[in-house]
Amino acid sequence: MEKVFNFSAGPAMLPHDVLAKAQAELTNWNDNGTSVMEISHRSKEFLSVVADAEKNLRELLSIPDNYHVLFCHGGARAQFAAVPMNLLGSATIADYVDAGYWAQSAITEAKKYCTPNTVSVITEIDGLKAVLPAKDWNLSADAEYVHFCPNETIDGIEIRDLPVTDKPIVADMSSTILSRPINVSEYGVIYAGAQKNIGPAGITLVIVRDDLLGKAKEYLPEFLNYKTLVEKESMFNTPPTFAWYLAGEVFKWVLEKGGLEGMREHNEHKASLLYDYIDSSSFYSNGVHPNNRSLMNVPFLLANPELDALFLEQAKAKGLHSLKGHRAVGGMRASIYNAMPLEGVQALVDFMKVFEKENA
Amino acid sequence: MEKVFNFSAGPAMLPHDVLAKAQAELTNWNDNGTSVMEISHRSKEFLSVVADAEKNLRELLSIPDNYHVLFCHGGARAQFAAVPMNLLGSATIADYVDAGYWAQSAITEAKKYCTPNTVSVITEIDGLKAVLPAKDWNLSADAEYVHFCPNETIDGIEIRDLPVTDKPIVADMSSTILSRPINVSEYGVIYAGAQKNIGPAGITLVIVRDDLLGKAKEYLPEFLNYKTLVEKESMFNTPPTFAWYLAGEVFKWVLEKGGLEGMREHNEHKASLLYDYIDSSSFYSNGVHPNNRSLMNVPFLLANPELDALFLEQAKAKGLHSLKGHRAVGGMRASIYNAMPLEGVQALVDFMKVFEKENA
Repeated sequence: MEKVFNFSAGPAMLPHDVLAKAQAELTNWNDNGTSVMEISHRSKEFLSVVADAEKNLRELLSIPDNYHVLFCHGGARAQFAAVPMNLLGSATIADYVDAGYWAQSAITEAKKYCTPNTVSVITEIDGLKAVLPAKDWNLSADAEYVHFCPNETIDGIEIRDLPVTDKPIVADMSSTILSRPINVSEYGVIYAGAQKNIGPAGITLVIVRDDLLGKAKEYLPEFLNYKTLVEKESMFNTPPTFAWYLAGEVFKWVLEKGGLEGMREHNEHKASLLYDYIDSSSFYSNGVHPNNRSLMNVPFLLANPELDALFLEQAKAKGLHSLKGHRAVGGMRASIYNAMPLEGVQALVDFMKVFEKENA
Repeated sequence: MEKVFNFSAGPAMLPHDVLAKAQAELTNWNDNGTSVMEISHRSKEFLSVVADAEKNLRELLSIPDNYHVLFCHGGARAQFAAVPMNLLGSATIADYVDAGYWAQSAITEAKKYCTPNTVSVITEIDGLKAVLPAKDWNLSADAEYVHFCPNETIDGIEIRDLPVTDKPIVADMSSTILSRPINVSEYGVIYAGAQKNIGPAGITLVIVRDDLLGKAKEYLPEFLNYKTLVEKESMFNTPPTFAWYLAGEVFKWVLEKGGLEGMREHNEHKASLLYDYIDSSSFYSNGVHPNNRSLMNVPFLLANPELDALFLEQAKAKGLHSLKGHRAVGGMRASIYNAMPLEGVQALVDFMKVFEKENA
């Protein structure tokens, strides 16, 4: 079979080396005679997985000591509810920066718990979608926190600015975490579903600053209570152990590949290769301003949408999977998270060139 | 290495054949060139996993058409909150049958949402722990539903009666689901964390009767809303796909092993072997009345607790893992879920005999 490169937006490709290791030890982990997914989460063997995962993640992100690292159930959607229930206290207003589908989904959920102040930040520059500079965002004076989603997977838009505020900044980093260095100390809460850059679907990372604990609504389900999860070291209930183990293996892999500086270089290289080719072609187009193009999700349109089906069919035959764009925007989308090798993007560009030549 | 039998209470042993298949296809599932955990949950390939899992589960449990099958995030602890938030409507009282630790944990969470009427059902017969007959349970007239946990893993107590009521019965079957046939139509909601008889930790089964939908509290997080999950076919957000796939493989395995009648026979055989030996010995003891002994979790004490450490050490050397009892009760506990082969229980009994002989 042709070597496969999987451009799925999530669940997404995992690093080949991580999957190969998981496969080799799936039925006999660390010579225990059992699978890692069959052992107690409270066994000393599994606790060493947990300790290593946190240590390596703290090293990768240079997480300060006054931040807690939690591994949670429920996906980022659970955090859409958990964030307001954990952080609002008696406040009733929070700012929600809106740059697309995921920000809007968080706003819809937040309406159950507060009055979200929707801060629209999308504009147009030279006919291309762009994000207003942060200094022009219309934040409210009385918000308890400012929520934003720095990378919108459907439109392929990345916000590189941080909100200009002295309130806690809460970021849904599901699709951008670990793709490049960030300064954790600028945030109050960072959360991320795993299925793009961390591991398999079913585990969610939360990084929360210590002073934000202890303001939970009385009706907050306990398994989503940050303070409880800190006290129970993310084991208030049985955690998704296999996903946690794989996340830990991914953290090791990122460290081996040069950490987040290494990932930035790797991701910028891949993204340039693809965006540069799209920009050089009149057959393909991307509608996002270069300032706000996502490093992780590259949507593009064919000049003639009637060719979409043929493009997808021929791409798949070449081992280039899951390139169909989200139904809301149509066209194509190449998600090129950390685990996508340069070779995969090169293979995509090579195919796009041939397809253009044959169909332009 | 000695063949390992893993008596962990959960995450627990998975069927050997299921793990071996998962290992063989971990990096190249169904000749797709990718892992099943790397593909979109909305891809036709994954939707076939989902359809098969539901079909096979419906066959195993003979689930009537007016019941929905959901695969959820969050573990059974999430359901401790989701059940009252989904079912209470404007009611304020629910009955909670209390036979031990897990029932009590559900009660603690339910107090956030209603006034749980705690129905104590533990008694003593001939010096052994037992459960009152259901006709003697002190249920309230105005409860919206009756919650119970038919198998308590820590004390090794199983409730074989159903509450005598015309209210919806809600059962936390985390540790007993699929161990023997049940009549689903007697229940309003059945839920179960996966990590004992279904699959790896991180996915939760909910079976809910259609007429119970649509009464959610306004503050219920959407990813826990049964009605939303029914409408979105358990894909309101990205589900834990790998755990779902493994659950589906476990359902196939149970069908191959004779379905739930086959499991009952298998489980009764294993439990008898162990309980009969314990009862025949004055060196080991189990404090539960035979009417209420769990088929799944067999706690036992050594006559001299000073020998506990030696027992555990020698057992482990024989490949008999995770036999330490819960810290609340001490002693030993052998969890013998569906995936534990008869051979494993036989090996445990053989070891116990030798240990008794050497130390009595």
